[in-house]
Amino acid sequence: MTKDDTAMVIFQPSARRGRVKKGVNIIEASREIGVDIEALCGEKKVCGKCKVRIEEGYFEKYGIESHRSHVSEWKEEEDKFIKGAEKEQGFRLGCVAEILDDVLVFVPEESRAGKQVVSKAARDIYIKLDPTVKMYYVECSPPTFEDPLGDLERVEDELTREYGLKDLTVDIFCLRQLPMMLRDGNWKVTVAVWNDKEIIRVLPGKVENYWGLAVDVGTTTVAGYFCNLATGAVFTTRSMMNPQCKYGEDVMARITYHMMNEDGLEKMSNEIIQGLNTIVEDVIAATHPPKKKNKKGEEEPEEELPDTEEREVYPCLDREDVVDMTIVFNTAMHHILLALNPEFVGLAPFPPVLHKSLDIKARDLNIKINKSAYIHVLPNEAGFVGADNVGVLIAEEPYKHDEIQLLIDIGTNGELVLGNKHKMISSSCATGPALEGAQLSFGMRAAPGAIERIEIDPETHEVNYKVIGHDAFSKYAEKKDLKTKGICGSGILDVLAELYRSGVINKAGRFSSEQKSERYRVNPESKQPEFVIAWADETSINKDVVISQKDIRQIQLAKGALHCGCLLMMRRMDIDAVDTIKIAGAFGTHVDRTKALIMGLFPDCEIEKIHSVGNAAGDGARCALLNKEKRVEANWVSRNVEYIELTVEKDFQQQFMEAMQIPHMKNPFPHLEGVVAPEILHQK
Amino acid sequence: MTKDDTAMVIFQPSARRGRVKKGVNIIEASREIGVDIEALCGEKKVCGKCKVRIEEGYFEKYGIESHRSHVSEWKEEEDKFIKGAEKEQGFRLGCVAEILDDVLVFVPEESRAGKQVVSKAARDIYIKLDPTVKMYYVECSPPTFEDPLGDLERVEDELTREYGLKDLTVDIFCLRQLPMMLRDGNWKVTVAVWNDKEIIRVLPGKVENYWGLAVDVGTTTVAGYFCNLATGAVFTTRSMMNPQCKYGEDVMARITYHMMNEDGLEKMSNEIIQGLNTIVEDVIAATHPPKKKNKKGEEEPEEELPDTEEREVYPCLDREDVVDMTIVFNTAMHHILLALNPEFVGLAPFPPVLHKSLDIKARDLNIKINKSAYIHVLPNEAGFVGADNVGVLIAEEPYKHDEIQLLIDIGTNGELVLGNKHKMISSSCATGPALEGAQLSFGMRAAPGAIERIEIDPETHEVNYKVIGHDAFSKYAEKKDLKTKGICGSGILDVLAELYRSGVINKAGRFSSEQKSERYRVNPESKQPEFVIAWADETSINKDVVISQKDIRQIQLAKGALHCGCLLMMRRMDIDAVDTIKIAGAFGTHVDRTKALIMGLFPDCEIEKIHSVGNAAGDGARCALLNKEKRVEANWVSRNVEYIELTVEKDFQQQFMEAMQIPHMKNPFPHLEGVVAPEILHQK
Repeated sequence: MTKDDTAMVIFQPSARRGRVKKGVNIIEASREIGVDIEALCGEKKVCGKCKVRIEEGYFEKYGIESHRSHVSEWKEEEDKFIKGAEKEQGFRLGCVAEILDDVLVFVPEESRAGKQVVSKAARDIYIKLDPTVKMYYVECSPPTFEDPLGDLERVEDELTREYGLKDLTVDIFCLRQLPMMLRDGNWKVTVAVWNDKEIIRVLPGKVENYWGLAVDVGTTTVAGYFCNLATGAVFTTRSMMNPQCKYGEDVMARITYHMMNEDGLEKMSNEIIQGLNTIVEDVIAATHPPKKKNKKGEEEPEEELPDTEEREVYPCLDREDVVDMTIVFNTAMHHILLALNPEFVGLAPFPPVLHKSLDIKARDLNIKINKSAYIHVLPNEAGFVGADNVGVLIAEEPYKHDEIQLLIDIGTNGELVLGNKHKMISSSCATGPALEGAQLSFGMRAAPGAIERIEIDPETHEVNYKVIGHDAFSKYAEKKDLKTKGICGSGILDVLAELYRSGVINKAGRFSSEQKSERYRVNPESKQPEFVIAWADETSINKDVVISQKDIRQIQLAKGALHCGCLLMMRRMDIDAVDTIKIAGAFGTHVDRTKALIMGLFPDCEIEKIHSVGNAAGDGARCALLNKEKRVEANWVSRNVEYIELTVEKDFQQQFMEAMQIPHMKNPFPHLEGVVAPEILHQK
Repeated sequence: MTKDDTAMVIFQPSARRGRVKKGVNIIEASREIGVDIEALCGEKKVCGKCKVRIEEGYFEKYGIESHRSHVSEWKEEEDKFIKGAEKEQGFRLGCVAEILDDVLVFVPEESRAGKQVVSKAARDIYIKLDPTVKMYYVECSPPTFEDPLGDLERVEDELTREYGLKDLTVDIFCLRQLPMMLRDGNWKVTVAVWNDKEIIRVLPGKVENYWGLAVDVGTTTVAGYFCNLATGAVFTTRSMMNPQCKYGEDVMARITYHMMNEDGLEKMSNEIIQGLNTIVEDVIAATHPPKKKNKKGEEEPEEELPDTEEREVYPCLDREDVVDMTIVFNTAMHHILLALNPEFVGLAPFPPVLHKSLDIKARDLNIKINKSAYIHVLPNEAGFVGADNVGVLIAEEPYKHDEIQLLIDIGTNGELVLGNKHKMISSSCATGPALEGAQLSFGMRAAPGAIERIEIDPETHEVNYKVIGHDAFSKYAEKKDLKTKGICGSGILDVLAELYRSGVINKAGRFSSEQKSERYRVNPESKQPEFVIAWADETSINKDVVISQKDIRQIQLAKGALHCGCLLMMRRMDIDAVDTIKIAGAFGTHVDRTKALIMGLFPDCEIEKIHSVGNAAGDGARCALLNKEKRVEANWVSRNVEYIELTVEKDFQQQFMEAMQIPHMKNPFPHLEGVVAPEILHQK
């Protein structure tokens, strides 16, 4: 392959680049270079997901000319997806346009593929950069007969003189590197010091960038944020299913697995540790240019990187370069990962093994980052309010404000914090996983084929819905194109709200006696009433997608638990209203705030004051990674939020039963007046 | 085997006991019960080493009657070894006397067998008991809904309330035990806290005794002192060859092995770690009663111990019960054990990787004591004066006295410290292993068959010597009984002194031209002059044991290096004499002080002021194990002894050459006047 046969392709915004054979299409090139572009239809040119923009002009930074004419001519198949302004801007379908010469290709956000549609992306929050691990550069004099001081003391003396660091300890694994590093660096080294206390790494010469990983271990999803500790920037993020899911969907199931199996705890701990190691491997792989393959399909050894600029895009790290890590999780996940007996967290009065944060050597947890690095595990508030909630708090800092905030973190379990700088209380409510779509007849994760929006015609009870992976609502689509598979979290509330609004179910959540369509039926096997959302011919599973009476009950239990929890906490705080509601977790990102209020998911609040804060738990992990004071703050917070055990609150049962009703009538929702049609809001 | 067939045998002072079949002799019984009695002749009834005393009377503590008549009748073979008073006291030969009924047998010191004759026994030195690891007993209240505090915080609150302990951390491996320990102990637990900082162990209920190991890793020998940290008592000691010996006899050979073999360091580190683990296993085994064997020779499972009294003799420990450990070693052994590159310790200007002490988790060194325990590694002074010398210093404390002490630690290398409370200097001298008997033609360790004393008749040049394992000097013995194999350290100086005194060699160390016996000859193979110490028919190796010109040169080099070192240090301190000389190490225990002075091994000193302090390095390790202030003191000492590199001192070469002469004539040895015959002292 001569240079004439190939063209340089640079993808933005990742700046990944490589030479590809002329004639390959952009999707093929992206795969070779290691850039993920969404391609739902498998390059059949029918999904239109792979839209990219071909840039025009000379790009000095990369030394290439990029022109629209450097890709193959416009094709008819593209007309359907790219029109007007977009066409003029140079958009093309990646699976159609072939590369003829050097190009710079911009991949818009919506065309970037994640492994799951709901990615726990890192939010752009302000964190003051003051990491626990810091890098110090020192220049030492070599030893002589007059000054035969030991290597370590030689370095430490300079650290004291230059930076005032005293009484440092040193990790044995790092110490083993010291003599060669000093001599390789000609007695000039960069030293990574943990917490101004312990030397954990020594590198020859002057090193500026260094790296850490913040992790949020959810019951279902694990997310990792890989950060440059010198700048605070998120280099890349990765998420994956919690590999423990096979041992049980929720916290209680996993605790039970531990109690029923002698090696259960060890197995589950190992699974999640291996999961974290996979994330480490993945983020490290992302720092290397994609491996070229030779003709036999074997990966060729990495070429030397030519310039420092390219080093910014591909710093080419090793896992030894990861020198710090923080983890948040709920208390049960915390205990299981650390192989601490989670049994008593599941037994009243639910005491955790410990509250406070831990610093554990990575090697002691078998986590494959730098051997001398510490894993910082954030503190737990209580048996059912874990380090993840502490993460939400240190990211959102309600304790620094006057206004009363209600923080709701809905994962597989619901965690609530209410308060302001004067007082904070927390509790957990057993929402179960229904609000995330799990444990329903056709619940599924937010992935292609999942119903995410739904409308039910009150006149005909006909259903119109939208699935992830298909742009149009069902009534505008070919049935066979829909490939419906189930209902995901964001569709769940829609289903309940629409079933109620259209009169299919009553406010107690029971199917009305009067039904207008054949979608309502009694399942011959389960003998349960059910309502068909999507007919078998609209699905890829060749089965009717239904919602059953039991499903509705699950959703009611979830929303009832949540609302009841909020109300009991407000009663404890002796307040009638909250100033702000912040919803953390994937659920918050997708929920329709108005519908959530209608359904009585949480107490009334001005709609503009209801915010989704994304994966705030993960943000908290990042805060603790990038700022050591946040770790102190976290320990303070964990012991200064009063935990309320809701189930032992006076009249809990009655409050809970009332909160299960649709909508919850105890609360007048004044803020919905004028926003929601009166017939819905005041429906009897 | 009915009870009638067996008799109870109790050995004192170890108090080990067991039932044995009636009719076996005492040696056989001791082997079964696990008591070591010296039996050099292999029960041939000729060595007389196995003398024991049969006690008379009723021993309430053990519930047995012991009488002399409970063993078989006196036999003729015993007359030779047991006479008069001893016979009256009830002494018998263990290989003769058979057990007929219950007996209590006292084994006198001289009959107790060690694996090597030179055992590094623990000296009875005063150490204030204040160990780094302490045990704290707390009683907690169980958690309730009103007080659902975590397990760890529950314990920590009590530790603060009862003992003022604050800001403790906890080891993750210990934390994993906590929930069950608390519940097993009904919320009453004993907590082991390291350095008032970290919780490393939790046990249910109240526990008093706890355990630690102090280790001296010599180039050749490793010694372990197993101590009860609650009382400071040495429970048992163990010693073994350093298993690294196969990679080289001395420090430089091992450093070279590392440099020549990529995995050399790892291999040598693993060897010594495995050695330490063997010591741990052995001391743990010593806490259990000896395993009974059934008829098939298989070990039977341990019986439950009946009473608390027996628990004192056999506390029945597990290696998890060992919660602290200290190690001293020379700098090279330090580096190799810790897998720190020892290369630069062997290269001028010999900087160590570090000086200061380290606390390393046992698991990080793969040392099989309690996983959460720390190994405390004492600090190094310099590349050639290691933590073992620091051990000697904190055991002997010359820095607390006015008098000027000279501390000499002769192991495979010579380490010297000179000074008092005002100033201390140290140096090392390349004595080589000759003074320990190694690297000589027939050098050997102090073991049966080694020549330990020697006399040469000035008239006839006939040799009379004594070997270890045989009571009489050679001229009173049957040649075939001597079983001579070589010359051990304590015989080396004798050889040189006697060769000189008798005129076989001159003061330059060369064989005289005039020789009186056929013992002098030129070896036909090596062409070297040599002198026969023992003829082949006196040996068990069927070869003449000789001392060659080269051997004499080695000994001269060693004694020259040592003496020259002492003199140069005295010059540095600007003193003419020292007040006290303390000789540490096995060499010191066996050397004849007068002969050492004659040979000019060290500077002149009052003979009564020359002390052997045994394994003072090991004592230092024990000090650091039992008293945490000693660890602080050790770090202070290591940085406050000025290290002198002798080889770069002015006129080192000339001083060294002069010091090699026999005797060293520069020094008048006034303290030998009147002690040593004038013809020896003033021989030209």
